[in-house]
Amino acid sequence: MKSIPILLMGCGGVGRQLLDHIVSCRSLHSNLGLALRVVGICDSSSLIVVNDAVKMELNDDSLKKICTIKSTGSSLSSMVELGSCHIFRDSEARRKVVDIAGLLGRSTGLVVADCSASSETLDILRQAAGLGCCIVLANKKPLTSKLEDYENLISNIRRIRFESTVGAGLPVIAAINRVLSSGDPIYRIVGSLSGTLGYVMSELEDGKLLSHVVQDANDLGTQNQCLFIKEFFDLFNFKNPRDDLSGMDVARKALILSRLLGQQINLEDIKVDSLYPEEMGPKSMSIGEFLNRGLPILDKDVGEKIKMAASKGNVVKYVCIIEGLRCQVGLQELPKDSPLGRLKGSENVVEIYSRCYKESPLVIQGAGAGNDTTAAGVLADIVDLQDLFK
Amino acid sequence: MKSIPILLMGCGGVGRQLLDHIVSCRSLHSNLGLALRVVGICDSSSLIVVNDAVKMELNDDSLKKICTIKSTGSSLSSMVELGSCHIFRDSEARRKVVDIAGLLGRSTGLVVADCSASSETLDILRQAAGLGCCIVLANKKPLTSKLEDYENLISNIRRIRFESTVGAGLPVIAAINRVLSSGDPIYRIVGSLSGTLGYVMSELEDGKLLSHVVQDANDLGTQNQCLFIKEFFDLFNFKNPRDDLSGMDVARKALILSRLLGQQINLEDIKVDSLYPEEMGPKSMSIGEFLNRGLPILDKDVGEKIKMAASKGNVVKYVCIIEGLRCQVGLQELPKDSPLGRLKGSENVVEIYSRCYKESPLVIQGAGAGNDTTAAGVLADIVDLQDLFK
Repeated sequence: MKSIPILLMGCGGVGRQLLDHIVSCRSLHSNLGLALRVVGICDSSSLIVVNDAVKMELNDDSLKKICTIKSTGSSLSSMVELGSCHIFRDSEARRKVVDIAGLLGRSTGLVVADCSASSETLDILRQAAGLGCCIVLANKKPLTSKLEDYENLISNIRRIRFESTVGAGLPVIAAINRVLSSGDPIYRIVGSLSGTLGYVMSELEDGKLLSHVVQDANDLGTQNQCLFIKEFFDLFNFKNPRDDLSGMDVARKALILSRLLGQQINLEDIKVDSLYPEEMGPKSMSIGEFLNRGLPILDKDVGEKIKMAASKGNVVKYVCIIEGLRCQVGLQELPKDSPLGRLKGSENVVEIYSRCYKESPLVIQGAGAGNDTTAAGVLADIVDLQDLFK
Repeated sequence: MKSIPILLMGCGGVGRQLLDHIVSCRSLHSNLGLALRVVGICDSSSLIVVNDAVKMELNDDSLKKICTIKSTGSSLSSMVELGSCHIFRDSEARRKVVDIAGLLGRSTGLVVADCSASSETLDILRQAAGLGCCIVLANKKPLTSKLEDYENLISNIRRIRFESTVGAGLPVIAAINRVLSSGDPIYRIVGSLSGTLGYVMSELEDGKLLSHVVQDANDLGTQNQCLFIKEFFDLFNFKNPRDDLSGMDVARKALILSRLLGQQINLEDIKVDSLYPEEMGPKSMSIGEFLNRGLPILDKDVGEKIKMAASKGNVVKYVCIIEGLRCQVGLQELPKDSPLGRLKGSENVVEIYSRCYKESPLVIQGAGAGNDTTAAGVLADIVDLQDLFK
């Protein structure tokens, strides 16, 4: 049996779901000769870790307890200590993570899985990578920081996986890496990479107003009225809907793909069309003002774009285009009867054009958001690293 | 620099293209820290191999010479010996392959890449796997032999890759393995997996007769009139068009996928709808008779199916369906406006349904045939094995 120690950073929705998957896959992984051994879990302020990371692991009862506590919104630091574990806080927690990375990285190996949405993890990840650890990311931020940091982080390309940063569990990055490693040059990628914006554009196509789509989902989400809306609510970042509507989430995904293709660019080099103007940004409007006063002002403009497109048999989608030295994200008028134009709801689609996939692009399509799917992608990445473990 | 020794079995279209890709990817792979080292090449009767497989390799000039000779249809055995190489024939060639597998399998490692279309390679592959070699297959036959052989061959699942057996270079098997390893159970796969039958059904949809489609392609292919037809000609097995039209090629692909999902079945357990009746089979008709006398008899029946479907807004495609304990391949009436129904030309598409991909299946689509794409898939598989090499 091959043992894969895991240290999880971030135990919100995706991280919690990952722990749940790990527990429910015990016998499946055992059949594959794998024992996934969670040795520590961090949230933004604390780390809970087994006393002896070389030999011990958080057992399934402990993992379930941690999931329960995190699902109530509490911090790990509020936990009564579990048997044979310690809780560390703040800078002590960070130091301890690096200690464990050093201890396991060069001996049995360690996967540091970043399921947070924080830009604060980069430094720890870099140190862990330098200490011989494997890195698995659902978090886009460490890969979309400045180019130098990116190149440093991926310098040992076999020890890092980040499938879930683009299209959740969809094998977009795996497919791109396969095409590139066979010497088939990719010259163009076009994709719809945001479950949220996909949903919003679909609703607008059905004649709804932008302000209503966002508000309705917000209201229904709060009341938790139906599963679909619940799922959409999970997708949509209601703490700050502007993160999605600004296009910055899509721009980060586009940056990850463009860097895979060898574009040496930074986030600010991407041409990003925001769905709202700067004067409705966080510096000028509260979220309440944005929802109630800002969005309705945008309804007319957006609605006209959609109608104009429809009059030509087209639809409007929020897409990314990566081609040559160009990387841009924004609204694009597309034939209704094209793979991108036909997209409904929160589905993602990516079209990859290369020498082998010139006339018919390699198309990958499917649910591209949600904690379950994202965590499944992280778990597949961890399993994919198994040959690096003893 | 990590060295990956390769022994290639089969140097027809796909094998030759693989050698070509290996040569043209030298600097790309070198940047990834990889040196792909071809130590030997077999065709159906002979093996050309370097004198010292531990240290030497066939250099690029030799590889190019071999490609040139094979492209003329000659056998390897007709070669004037290249410097520092030996040629072995028949049973001696087979013994020598096993010798090399034993020598390298347990020391530096060896990839045995089967790009033949032969059912005769199974025994050597099994021995090589038992000797610690990695196996990469474009050849479907070894995986579609009886269940016991299959289970034996894939018993060390990390040392075998066979992406190019289904959908050529499309990452169908990689995607399925990712979904399965994350504990997300796949309950249904529907696909159009034959470039040839995809093309034929597309042409029938446009109102052509079955006999004309096959004959036209045959005639034009012989005259090599245009690139598209040339490509189709490469796809279609004109030595025996019945192999494709019988559905057996699709059945083999379906068997590979169904076994991946855990179905313990054999080829004869699959319900296969052939496009021609048994009395037009190889035992009763020559290929000439089949083309000139057999096919025209089928035109009416097939044409009526297509018309009937069209009158309901549907199209007819040749698909595989894998679900529960069921695995079948045959003609299926589908809505014109569905991913499968929209398929044109020789494109492949696979829809994967699982817990995560329930409402929106995971769809993989693109060119699913051709030597270039198939060889690219084999090369990506080889690169994917790199962590098992020193």
